[in-house]
Amino acid sequence: MTNEIQIQWKGNMAFNADSMGGSFKIDAGTESGGEGNGLRPKALMLTSLAGCSGLDIVSLLKKMRAEVDHLEINVTGELTEEHPKYYDKVHMEYVFYGSSFKKDKIKKAIQLSVDQYCGVMAMFKKFADVSISEKYIEQ
Amino acid sequence: MTNEIQIQWKGNMAFNADSMGGSFKIDAGTESGGEGNGLRPKALMLTSLAGCSGLDIVSLLKKMRAEVDHLEINVTGELTEEHPKYYDKVHMEYVFYGSSFKKDKIKKAIQLSVDQYCGVMAMFKKFADVSISEKYIEQ
Repeated sequence: MTNEIQIQWKGNMAFNADSMGGSFKIDAGTESGGEGNGLRPKALMLTSLAGCSGLDIVSLLKKMRAEVDHLEINVTGELTEEHPKYYDKVHMEYVFYGSSFKKDKIKKAIQLSVDQYCGVMAMFKKFADVSISEKYIEQ
Repeated sequence: MTNEIQIQWKGNMAFNADSMGGSFKIDAGTESGGEGNGLRPKALMLTSLAGCSGLDIVSLLKKMRAEVDHLEINVTGELTEEHPKYYDKVHMEYVFYGSSFKKDKIKKAIQLSVDQYCGVMAMFKKFADVSISEKYIEQ
């Protein structure tokens, strides 16, 4: 399978991006000569990681009949000091909201995503030290 | 430096993403149980790559006094057949629009982005075979 995207320059540091499923604006922050009117490209790597694993998790929890009320995923990526600046440490926190959690199944779903299904995770593991944590919020 | 993002589940395969510089929707396509009402996470990796290098290029061309009228970047990523599906081959095409191109400077800007500045490119090189091409459209 092949994925294709395009970006078009819109002056100064602004671009329009046509990515699969929609279009959006890219811009650098004011500290980097942009106007901050768009998404920062490097942070999109982290959002890609969260989205990829998030889709795995909600799909697996449904199949396992271990649904939760709500799920948030927080990703923190530490960039190296030197150019080219890449993420060398990444932490993903899965936050589950609900009651009567089926924790064994939830842990299994995370493990399957992280170790087997999530292609973005497989890519991140090639350059970053990725750590995982989970949190359960009873409501 | 640390980058942080969050995604929140919105039912079925839909998420809201708060990434740096803006918010957007993530969804799986109908072929994967979603409704296609949002960006596909894996394609965002390619958009991140294009955006990172695009910001380098327009900034370098300005410094080098080698501006062009317009720039498009097309990225194609081939995914492996087996899970976890990752990009093993990636092609980036830089398309410059203008007249009296300062091609030496433009080539130098691409080379600096690809080899030294673009952190997302450095990450991609850890898992993919990345090829580059450029095209000049006189107008």
